[in-house]
This record gives sequence, structure tokens and C-alpha cells, in this order.
Amino acid sequence: MDYRISDKMINIKPSAIREIFKSLTDPTVIAFAAGNPSPDAFPVEKMSELSEIIYEKMPVLALQYGITEGYAPLIEKIKTRLKNRFNIDSKSDSALIMSGGQQGIDLTCKVMCNPGDVVICERPSFIGALNSFKANGANIVQIDMESDGICIEKLEKALIEHKNAKIIYLIPTFHNPLGTTMSLEKRKAVLVLAKKYGVIILEDNPYGELRFRGEEIPTIKSFDKDDIVVYCSTFSKIIAPAIRVGFIVAPQEIANKIVVAKQVNDVHTNMYFQIMCDLFIEKFNIGEHIEKIRVLYKNKCLLMLDEMRKKFDKVNIKYTSPDGGLFLWCTLPDNIDLTRFVKLSLDKKVAVVPGGTFLADEREISHSFRVNYSFPTDEQIITGVNILAQVAEEYM
Amino acid sequence: MDYRISDKMINIKPSAIREIFKSLTDPTVIAFAAGNPSPDAFPVEKMSELSEIIYEKMPVLALQYGITEGYAPLIEKIKTRLKNRFNIDSKSDSALIMSGGQQGIDLTCKVMCNPGDVVICERPSFIGALNSFKANGANIVQIDMESDGICIEKLEKALIEHKNAKIIYLIPTFHNPLGTTMSLEKRKAVLVLAKKYGVIILEDNPYGELRFRGEEIPTIKSFDKDDIVVYCSTFSKIIAPAIRVGFIVAPQEIANKIVVAKQVNDVHTNMYFQIMCDLFIEKFNIGEHIEKIRVLYKNKCLLMLDEMRKKFDKVNIKYTSPDGGLFLWCTLPDNIDLTRFVKLSLDKKVAVVPGGTFLADEREISHSFRVNYSFPTDEQIITGVNILAQVAEEYM
Repeated sequence: MDYRISDKMINIKPSAIREIFKSLTDPTVIAFAAGNPSPDAFPVEKMSELSEIIYEKMPVLALQYGITEGYAPLIEKIKTRLKNRFNIDSKSDSALIMSGGQQGIDLTCKVMCNPGDVVICERPSFIGALNSFKANGANIVQIDMESDGICIEKLEKALIEHKNAKIIYLIPTFHNPLGTTMSLEKRKAVLVLAKKYGVIILEDNPYGELRFRGEEIPTIKSFDKDDIVVYCSTFSKIIAPAIRVGFIVAPQEIANKIVVAKQVNDVHTNMYFQIMCDLFIEKFNIGEHIEKIRVLYKNKCLLMLDEMRKKFDKVNIKYTSPDGGLFLWCTLPDNIDLTRFVKLSLDKKVAVVPGGTFLADEREISHSFRVNYSFPTDEQIITGVNILAQVAEEYM
Repeated sequence: MDYRISDKMINIKPSAIREIFKSLTDPTVIAFAAGNPSPDAFPVEKMSELSEIIYEKMPVLALQYGITEGYAPLIEKIKTRLKNRFNIDSKSDSALIMSGGQQGIDLTCKVMCNPGDVVICERPSFIGALNSFKANGANIVQIDMESDGICIEKLEKALIEHKNAKIIYLIPTFHNPLGTTMSLEKRKAVLVLAKKYGVIILEDNPYGELRFRGEEIPTIKSFDKDDIVVYCSTFSKIIAPAIRVGFIVAPQEIANKIVVAKQVNDVHTNMYFQIMCDLFIEKFNIGEHIEKIRVLYKNKCLLMLDEMRKKFDKVNIKYTSPDGGLFLWCTLPDNIDLTRFVKLSLDKKVAVVPGGTFLADEREISHSFRVNYSFPTDEQIITGVNILAQVAEEYM
């Protein structure tokens, strides 16, 4: 049978780096390519304790159909935490539970974009978001980055050029893949531009809780007085990813449409883990739990930076220096071919993600690669950085 | 701000019967309008037991990111069960875990339909599917039903007329909302037409395990030798709905696209409940558990039919007589206005779903309403049928 696949899906191919991600299931490979939290960060005992409470005290609530918007007590707790922790006042907005942050990104694009509409993103940007925009039929325009975030002049130029731009998608804090953070000045400038050109901002903040050094920079959403920002976050990095519980805070009119889109997409997010997140906040000190994760990732990141200083500097590999999150971004000297470097590294059992993965057209030439420090063990961090340096050294 | 919502979402309005569904949270209302399984059907103790095993023996597997296709051992068990129970041989197909059956419907439509393409459905049909098709920008063409299923002549006429038809969406077994089952002859005829006109069939079978009388009729998928059928089902009605675990079996080429669509939609289905479904099948006799649910629903359905025979026959309300599933379909005499009947019933604390809900244009005039028998208690079934008959009697 000749399957007449939809236009938006026909040309989306499985990523060229599928092989690299497959290698992550090989325990002998050092998985710098992962985006996974550390398994040491999962609060297994607390979750097991809460699980017993759920099956004993509220099994029907946890197992019967729930409402699409999400479990009301959890929504209230999220709003309170956003207010206290990130100064996000969601009065004129609506908070909704999502099946992971990814669903928040996907449904926001579905609700806003017609085929051919433009989503403006950072360059590079999160592959899961880029592919979601494509799968919704949107065209992606990527704007060059500077050390303190997206280039404001180029962003305005793109907004002038693309009248059908609907969304500016940003990861301002501990950017994926760069590991860098957008300055307060640029956050304010982006919001001014979004308002001026009538385009919403989708602020993706999955890592915001994971700052381990430096000063907090307010979220864009925290100074959004005109209901321009859809704010998206998740419990994936602070409790566990496989529970698939995220959330968005969106202007009421957009939130109303996202509820309809979610209802026909998965009806509602699994109730058991919504209740568990709610009970976790109620019964345990989630701030204390997050602090443990911060210390864990700080140590891993500083260890990695230390190894890179020792090994990468002499082979001219540059690297960013994150204040939080899961990733840092390395750039090879011009004489090293990235594709070959990635392949040689994988042959030596170190997996990294080539930079092209984070571009709308992944065939574009890149000299950079993403490295994750949350997932590998300390030993793997030391060994892995050493191997990457050895591979680069062969070019010297 | 003037939000420029996408064309496909701008005109989708919250259902006119939202108020009725809201009434379901009122415990004093008899919830014939629900689509919920009976809470007595939830295997709480078994799930609690398995939960302990998961947190003790495989916490990282349950909490870390998983692959989009789903948990491999569960997929194998689903394939085996489909083969043994429904004679579905998925050799040239791919089985994928979905976040509930709804996601299977939604992503199949997303993968197949451009804006303006046609999905052909039964008339009436499942509201969640109709709204998903609309939210994907598809146009819906509904085909009249006969007592043994969709009208084959009208279906062929629609296929001739709509060259851009991409999907024939069917609920052949224990239809929602009708409660009726498509004959074997028509199942074969539909497959012949689908092949002839190059349109895939989306066979939705959430209730297939719930037959409590009459002979099994093979699924359309079981005699699909040409990879025409996407088969969609769920654990919602045999374990619990809020766990959000469903599955599809689809021709490889379509499955490959659905994997991409799912990856950008919710990355993967929550791992904990995938593992739980797998362990449930492995450690317990799921056939025995399902048999208990069948007996429970048989008793409820027969009780309701008995009450209807006593009360509805004299007020000329007609009703279908299901052999399984959750629903039956009642039709008022012409002189009774459905909208008013539904309102008067709700005033007397009985909620039913007006027939227009199951039409692509819910403003169309209908004389029918859907009744659920799985969720209400026996007492509520007796009282509720009695109240509906009283409301009808006032028109006599």
C-alpha cells in the first residue's frame, strides 16, 4: 500500500545520531551524549513511601480518569512555588499539568502555528523542540548566540522579516546544549521585542532549579506584565524524568486551547505521579532534596571543568563554563573534522552529541559538540575527558 | 495581546456538554454520562504489590528516561496476547506503547492528515476521536450506521467522493456510543474498500476484552494481509485508565512516523506503569482478572437492560442491547425534545450524554443519548433508569 503520509511528517527523518543514542544502552560506553539526570538524584525511598500512601489512602483517585487540566492540589503547589522561588505571579495566567515539558512545547506550537508559520529559536537549540516545531509544520529560524544569550539585533531583523513568526522559543537558563545563561538585560530586551511584534515567547526552563553557583537571574515570565510568555518546566530534573510530569503557565486564552489540544492528545497526565509530586512537596522538603541534586551536579561539573582545563586547553578544545543545568558545549579547533572526531571517540567508547544535531538543518557544518556531566560517574568523567583529548591530540 | 491561534485550533470550542461532565464530580448525581470503568474493577492490591517490587528491584529503570517505542518486554507480551487472544499476527507491523489509546488515535491522524484531508467515521462516533481529528485540521465525514455496523454503500460513496480521505476510523466492537458490534461480513467489506481506495483503517478496540455474552467476532486487523489497518487499544479498561498506557500495532512505515511524532510529543510513556503492566501479565493471570471485570459489567448491563424493559418500553424509549463494553444507546420518541429531556434529567440528578455530542457538528438534532453502566452502582442503575422514565412520562 502506498501510505500517503502528511506533508509535515513525510520529510522528518530519524536523527542522524540515532546510532550514538543507541550506544547509550551499552554500559561500556561513557555516556556524555545523554541528557539524563543522575540516577543518584532519584528519591527512590521517598517515592516508595509515598506510593504506599497512594495505594492505601487514595487508590481510586490515582487510577480513575482525571481532568485534563491536572490535579488541582498539585497545580496550587506549583503556583505557590513559582511565586516564591521564581517570582512568577500567575494571576492572569492558567497553570496546566503536562506529560513532561516536551508536551508543553509540542502543544504550544500546535495551538499557535499553521503549516509554514515561523518559530524563532536560538542557534543551537534543543533538538526535541526543533523536531516538535517541524512535526507541527512550522519553519524554524535560528538566531546566532552571543556569550550572554541570543543576538538581539538579529532577533529583531528576523521578526521584521518573518511576519508569520508566532513563537520565540528560548532556553534562557543553563541553555541546552550551550550550558550558558541569558543576561537580565537581554531577557528584558527579548520581551520588549516580542510585545512590539506581537509574537509570544515560549520560555523553556527545565533546569532553572539546578543553579549551583552565581546569582539567580529572574525568568522572563517574572516580568511579563502583558501575558506574552508561555512558561514551561518539569519535574523530570528534580524528581525523575520517567514519571512524565511537567507543567506550563500560559496566558488564559492560550491555556484554554492547550487544554483542548491535550484532551485529544492524551486525555490527562497519569494521576499517580501527579499525586506523588503533590505529596512530595507536602510531606517532604523539596528544597532540601533539590539542594542535594545541586551539590551532586556542582561536584560533577567542577570535576569535568577541572579535567578539561588540564586536558582540553593544550589541544585547543574550547568549552563553556555553566553555573547550573546538565550540559556544557565544546568547540574543536578548525582543523579537526567533527564527524570524524565523534566517530573516533565513539570507537574509544566515549559518546558525545555533534553540534549539527541542534541545528534545524543538521547537515550544516559544526565544530562543536555537547557534553553531559550529570549522568556519568566521576571516574567516567575523568576517563572520558582524557579520551576526548587523546582523540584531538592525534590531529596536532 | 492579540494571540494568533492556529487555524486548526481557533474554532475548536469546549464541548457544549462540559457542564454535564462537570456534574460528574457531584457525588449526588447518578453518573450515566461517564465513560469510566468501575472502581471495583481496579486491581489495587496487586498493583500495590507490584509497586513494591518496582521500587525495590528496578527503580532506575522505572524512573530514568526510556525509549520512545516503549518497554520491550511489555511490547513482546502485548504481541503474544494479541496473537493468542485476537489472532493478530504483527509480523510485518510494529507495536508501540502509547500514553493511552487516545494518543494512538491522535498521532495516527497527525502522521496521515494534512489540513483539509478527510477522516471517515461512523455516525455517531467517539467524541475524543472526532475532536482529535478536528484539532489536526482534518475534515470529518460521518457515515450512517445500521444495526450490524457502518453502511457499506454509503462508505463507498464517501470514498469515491473524497479523494483526500486518509483514514477510516472505526470502533467495530462494542461501539462507543452505540454499544453495538459490527458483523464479520461488514468487517471484511470495509477492509476490501479500504484497500480498493488506498485508505488506511484505524481500528479502535478499547473494549474488545470486555465481551460478556455472544460469540467473538475477529478484529479487522486479524485478517489484514495488506498492512492497511492501524490497530489501537489500551490497558485503561482492563487495569485502570489513569495509568495512561495504551498501544498500537501499525504497518512499519506508519509506525516509524508515529515514533517520531511521539518522541516530540511526550518522549515516552511513563515507565513505571509500563513495567507494572508487564509484571501484571507475568506474575498474575490477567485473563482471570479480566473475567472478573466481565462478570461485573455483565451483571450491571443486564440489570440496566432489565430495568429499561420494565420502565422504558412503556414510554417508548428504545435502547440497544450490548454484548460487552461500557455503553448503551437510547432513543427518545420524536415528540420529546432531547435537550430539554437531558436538562430535566440532570435537574433530577441523572446525567446522560446527548447524542449530538457524538456528531462532527454537535448542533445537529438528535433524539438519542448515551448511557454508561460500568460506573454507577446497582442501586444507581435502578434509580437512574426510573428517573429517566419519569422524565419521559411527563411528555405522554
